[in-house]
Amino acid sequence: MKMNEGIEWAIHCCSLLAHLPDDATLPVGALAEFFEVPQAYLAKNLQLLSRAKIVSSAKGPGGGYRLARKAEQISLLDVVQAIDGRDPCFRCSEIRQRGPSAVAASNYRKPCGIARTMLKAEKVWRDELKKVSILDIKELGIQETNPAQARKAEDWLTHVLRFP
Amino acid sequence: MKMNEGIEWAIHCCSLLAHLPDDATLPVGALAEFFEVPQAYLAKNLQLLSRAKIVSSAKGPGGGYRLARKAEQISLLDVVQAIDGRDPCFRCSEIRQRGPSAVAASNYRKPCGIARTMLKAEKVWRDELKKVSILDIKELGIQETNPAQARKAEDWLTHVLRFP
Repeated sequence: MKMNEGIEWAIHCCSLLAHLPDDATLPVGALAEFFEVPQAYLAKNLQLLSRAKIVSSAKGPGGGYRLARKAEQISLLDVVQAIDGRDPCFRCSEIRQRGPSAVAASNYRKPCGIARTMLKAEKVWRDELKKVSILDIKELGIQETNPAQARKAEDWLTHVLRFP
Repeated sequence: MKMNEGIEWAIHCCSLLAHLPDDATLPVGALAEFFEVPQAYLAKNLQLLSRAKIVSSAKGPGGGYRLARKAEQISLLDVVQAIDGRDPCFRCSEIRQRGPSAVAASNYRKPCGIARTMLKAEKVWRDELKKVSILDIKELGIQETNPAQARKAEDWLTHVLRFP
């Protein structure tokens, strides 16, 4: 089972946007430059984040993306579900209702125990993602990023915000 | 993110095989009949279970599949990984090493904090799957299966084992 690659980009993007001063925005072109990723690809994922009210966009010259909520109010689960949707990974196709042992459909009121068990395990994973916010990710980045890289990122950001 | 459909079949199959008397086996044709699924499709997944030493097969007339270990020694994680492999769902493409803030590769010794966080959340899901055995699933089935269905399944199994 492979997670949508866009999730990795989206988390990195949100973490960068969490560094912006209030009311500043970054155009999609600048984000694509910073992450060295095709702009059309990033734009598609930013639209998904926008639809989930994780980022918002200001139109027109000098416009661009910013976080739509405070970084501490955006969880990794929000980002994952914005990109990948809310469907469970395990989908029950009601195998138990097939074959020679099947009985009338009215006898299957309670969901299948296998499905319930699989979905319960997924829920634990989602609950874990819900515990981590974009602010946590930003702070982890601040702690761990190599100082030379942090300086280069800051210089780049200052330049882009001054000369959009 | 969608889980391989074969996982659902594989768990149901293992749970059925856990009902067999010692040393009895079920041919793939009988399993395909019981679950009303194309035999070739089921055979492919049984091969994956066999490779993971979850089931074993007896060759020749009267041959077929049985659990290779006790049902309490097979976890749902074993089954999921047999069908879907052991790769993590989240794959880090080292986005942090791209773009204008990148520094020399030697500065990225510690894995990216975003990847670590995502993988930690997945691990919680896998640990949850590891806690549940095929015996647990079998017992849940015994508790919850409609008595008429349980009787039909038992009759079918008795017949198939007697006239393979």
